[in-house]
Amino acid sequence: MSLVMNREDLTDYMRQVFPQVHRDFVVEELNEDSIVMRLVVEDRHLRPGGTVSGPSMFGLADVSVYAMVLARKGRQSLAVTTNSSLDFLRKPEGGKDMIAHCRLLKLGRSLAVGDVLMFSDGSDKPVARATMTYSLPPEGSAAAAFG
Amino acid sequence: MSLVMNREDLTDYMRQVFPQVHRDFVVEELNEDSIVMRLVVEDRHLRPGGTVSGPSMFGLADVSVYAMVLARKGRQSLAVTTNSSLDFLRKPEGGKDMIAHCRLLKLGRSLAVGDVLMFSDGSDKPVARATMTYSLPPEGSAAAAFG
Amino acid sequence: MSLVMNREDLTDYMRQVFPQVHRDFVVEELNEDSIVMRLVVEDRHLRPGGTVSGPSMFGLADVSVYAMVLARKGRQSLAVTTNSSLDFLRKPEGGKDMIAHCRLLKLGRSLAVGDVLMFSDGSDKPVARATMTYSLPPEGSAAAAFG
Amino acid sequence: MSLVMNREDLTDYMRQVFPQVHRDFVVEELNEDSIVMRLVVEDRHLRPGGTVSGPSMFGLADVSVYAMVLARKGRQSLAVTTNSSLDFLRKPEGGKDMIAHCRLLKLGRSLAVGDVLMFSDGSDKPVARATMTYSLPPEGSAAAAFG
Repeated sequence: MSLVMNREDLTDYMRQVFPQVHRDFVVEELNEDSIVMRLVVEDRHLRPGGTVSGPSMFGLADVSVYAMVLARKGRQSLAVTTNSSLDFLRKPEGGKDMIAHCRLLKLGRSLAVGDVLMFSDGSDKPVARATMTYSLPPEGSAAAAFG
Repeated sequence: MSLVMNREDLTDYMRQVFPQVHRDFVVEELNEDSIVMRLVVEDRHLRPGGTVSGPSMFGLADVSVYAMVLARKGRQSLAVTTNSSLDFLRKPEGGKDMIAHCRLLKLGRSLAVGDVLMFSDGSDKPVARATMTYSLPPEGSAAAAFG
Repeated sequence: MSLVMNREDLTDYMRQVFPQVHRDFVVEELNEDSIVMRLVVEDRHLRPGGTVSGPSMFGLADVSVYAMVLARKGRQSLAVTTNSSLDFLRKPEGGKDMIAHCRLLKLGRSLAVGDVLMFSDGSDKPVARATMTYSLPPEGSAAAAFG
Repeated sequence: MSLVMNREDLTDYMRQVFPQVHRDFVVEELNEDSIVMRLVVEDRHLRPGGTVSGPSMFGLADVSVYAMVLARKGRQSLAVTTNSSLDFLRKPEGGKDMIAHCRLLKLGRSLAVGDVLMFSDGSDKPVARATMTYSLPPEGSAAAAFG
């Protein structure tokens, strides 16, 4: 299967659907089954000691899988996260952006699953791992996606 | 076992260790094995459509378990989240605070585990469920808690 | 909402759909939103040292949520587990059955979520915690449930 | 870091510590940060319809990460699973062995984390995904690993 949005389309669309947060995220690479997303780390993402906060890493993983689903399914802004698991592995490096490498593991009729490894920019040791499941509403339906 | 901090101590301490976010959270109840925490929902916690964002719910669950551990173990600000799982069950009600009910399931020497049900204020239908695991550094040690 | 199968119906039906394992499980209690399930521990469930094995605890949690869904939705043997998380909290007591207390957190059109606390029989300290998500096929459809 | 056990050592040791189940598993490949493990599927691993059971897939993921930890840390049979998450993505192919590809994401002083993709033998579409966390007892200590 192939992409229905390219990197530019995806970036434009995220600007519309995430007006509060789109500036935080940059699509670095986009392939049929994978995406690389940057979190531009600002003070508001940090905890005391310079650590990137848990909610910021959750948000990065969530946006990465959502963007991957959008790029394959098109403008499904009704898709909702139904499940996530995260493992925090190492302390992030202070002052560095976070880079998420996401693989799409499944894109079914009603569920999509992606997993994500997150790194401090320039490092190859994973800071965190996440899996996200999205529920996809029936096509052409405005029904809520909360199955 | 008993609490080593009461509700006022805990609130004071959270003000110190979470200067950026402490205003978001209010300890509503505190018992030996459970805590009730309110997320005071503001615009910055919302997604388009008035839904409380995933990162905000992650943050609420995380702070709830952390506060419970603090209240039992004392000022262990080095404790770090190592694992979390979240299930998103229903759409939160727009404009309502979120209320987290957290149970402490385990408080061992090196690991603590708590689970959390989150509700829109005034509703008894859970919006989300979470489990959080914290790694606790050896007592008297300044070593990093990332086991 | 109410139950469409009682304890006897449920026990009979599990005998049909789980011919290999139904003898391992006993429905102890059944309510509208909760179920108590016993795992009758035999040698084959044990690891060296007398610990109940991880796969056996996974199986107990999985069967508990599945039985709860059956009791509410009827004979939906096509429902499949799509996600699970487990936390192992304490060593089970050797030679004791395991007792699972399961709450149904959500029963939607396409997804059901239940959580489970597991205890050694006679103890009130949880040995393990689990959450299971089931995908439910559209009613009247023989389509696979793997969304 | 390097391996302290090779494939033969590891196979011998698993025979000792898992007398009930070692015949089910074959170490196919072993590298410094990854392992490939085969589950030799027999009737007892199946559910009606020929599907490999959830507990069997849990067991495969668990053994894969445990074997990887052993190969790096040595004969740490006290290590215990503290957390797991699994996503079931597709129906396994009937009558095929299951092949697990495990990556070691973290090997710390007190915690090890590995993730696993599981495939029906001969297919490149993942059937299931898992992450397992192991608690490691302090070296030279016989203390329980349940932190």
